[in-house]
Amino acid sequence: MKKIINAPETLVMEMCEGMQRAHPDKLVFIAKSKIIRRKTLNADKVSLISGGGSGHEPAHAGFVGEGMLDAAVCGDVFASPSTIQVYNAIRETKSNKGTLLIIKNYSGDCMNFDAAAEMAEEDDGIVAERVYVNDDVAVKDSLYTVGRRGVAGTVLVHKAAGAAAEKGLSLAEVKAVAEKAIANVRSMGFALTSCTVPAKGTPTFVLSEDEMEFGVGIHGEPGTRREETVTADELAEKLLDCICPDLPFTAGCETAVLVNGFGSTPLQELYLLFNSAAKSLEKRGIKIAKSYVGNYMTSIDMAGASITLMKLDEELKELLSAPADACGFKC
Amino acid sequence: MKKIINAPETLVMEMCEGMQRAHPDKLVFIAKSKIIRRKTLNADKVSLISGGGSGHEPAHAGFVGEGMLDAAVCGDVFASPSTIQVYNAIRETKSNKGTLLIIKNYSGDCMNFDAAAEMAEEDDGIVAERVYVNDDVAVKDSLYTVGRRGVAGTVLVHKAAGAAAEKGLSLAEVKAVAEKAIANVRSMGFALTSCTVPAKGTPTFVLSEDEMEFGVGIHGEPGTRREETVTADELAEKLLDCICPDLPFTAGCETAVLVNGFGSTPLQELYLLFNSAAKSLEKRGIKIAKSYVGNYMTSIDMAGASITLMKLDEELKELLSAPADACGFKC
Repeated sequence: MKKIINAPETLVMEMCEGMQRAHPDKLVFIAKSKIIRRKTLNADKVSLISGGGSGHEPAHAGFVGEGMLDAAVCGDVFASPSTIQVYNAIRETKSNKGTLLIIKNYSGDCMNFDAAAEMAEEDDGIVAERVYVNDDVAVKDSLYTVGRRGVAGTVLVHKAAGAAAEKGLSLAEVKAVAEKAIANVRSMGFALTSCTVPAKGTPTFVLSEDEMEFGVGIHGEPGTRREETVTADELAEKLLDCICPDLPFTAGCETAVLVNGFGSTPLQELYLLFNSAAKSLEKRGIKIAKSYVGNYMTSIDMAGASITLMKLDEELKELLSAPADACGFKC
Repeated sequence: MKKIINAPETLVMEMCEGMQRAHPDKLVFIAKSKIIRRKTLNADKVSLISGGGSGHEPAHAGFVGEGMLDAAVCGDVFASPSTIQVYNAIRETKSNKGTLLIIKNYSGDCMNFDAAAEMAEEDDGIVAERVYVNDDVAVKDSLYTVGRRGVAGTVLVHKAAGAAAEKGLSLAEVKAVAEKAIANVRSMGFALTSCTVPAKGTPTFVLSEDEMEFGVGIHGEPGTRREETVTADELAEKLLDCICPDLPFTAGCETAVLVNGFGSTPLQELYLLFNSAAKSLEKRGIKIAKSYVGNYMTSIDMAGASITLMKLDEELKELLSAPADACGFKC
């Protein structure tokens, strides 16, 4: 294993310290609970909290900032943060308008975020509503989930809900926006290589030189099937053939498209995949109103990518287009 | 070779098409000359053009936008764009205030950008001044250069000169800013793995599991020496031990620090390296006024990173802090 680290045990802590040192005017790192929060909080807007296992950078700490999250809770690599960590994040960002937790649908995360919300309500009288992102069309139930997994679409939920919260909407309204975003977002990914979890030190799985894992999860968990690699055009077609019928996305609908790298995919390949996807969507009559290309929800150093589509109405389009200032997000 | 492409021959063209399709409100791709330019040009500001071989994405097309470049000329992977391509870019972005070419110091780039500037002056009466970025402290002369190589520091030169041009400064003034930025910027990098040039299909070099190439170039060209891998803290120390004495950067000086990934390095490792560098700079009494962490000047899919330091005076600090809107740049 070749990594720029000091030791696997201190990786998450040092990475979070690095984020704070790099963005001292915008972020505060609370080491005790591994929370990254905005430096300047606004108690008159709904507080938005997300998080989960580390290893998905810039998710989620890179999405803390104006127009997006108020705090991100960082678990160990690919491990949910504890109930206490999440509880502390809720208290740290307490708002007069209440709190919304945006949770990726993994059993561990759901359990710990739910328990933290209940504690905050019982002990501190803080109302903490929850939404669960489950955009991955690859698998219905998986190693770590009941129901679908939450993957890159989560970022667009952060963006839409973040803009709604920044506008001063009520907790019920922000939650409704998040739920609408979740109901309209779908993703599908593939891996060309495995990630290597630092504490393990060896790749999670091995693919031969002409294989890809189709429908892979963001923790290196298995996808739907192992297949031969294909061209970028064929790949985009295959991914969209899984995504489009699911919602469905049909001719005439307007979308946001996110081509998300898994960590070690060069940007040149991501733009090329976006190009292939855009051509395929055009043939399907599906319009692209917003585009995002880059590393948003990674799987440490996995090579591969996912495509996310969000179906937009006027409200979602306006919220995605609102300004945001988070170190890991490009509008 | 596992890559998300259709064919090596069409990669650059399709990638550029993808950039335009992703950012249609901001970028125009002129396919004939492989130029990416701003959609809206302003003839009353100095035009800034950069470019070079492809494979360094987001450099340079990702830095086209308000507050940065007006156009980027895209060569084939790791090959200089031709004289005619650069000449067409100069004509495409003709301004009443003249043009500045920001060139990374490689023999091929210097020759072609220089010849294009001369053609533009002789044939069209366009004044196109040039500056040459040579921030890499690793090697004095190299495979592809007379003098030092231009690497990640180029991005900060784009930013400073771009902000100066946007303010409406004259060509001489913008050139002076660029030259000051170049005089004050130094970089040093290392590779943990080689890149794979698509047309070749195999890695440029091979490192064993405990080796790194110290002082590597951004085309996979050899560095100063092959060494054993070390911890992130030791790595930051070694890189800064090369960079700091060179200018020199001494106690009390203010800097911008860029930790730049080479393409397949996870963001978690880049923030960790930034953290190590920040601790080392603090011990040296060197202040960090601006920070950048991410993929800015890559080497396709190389694993590794570089550290860039720019010594700041009030003018450079103000210019780096000015707003910029380019799809590959995070302020």
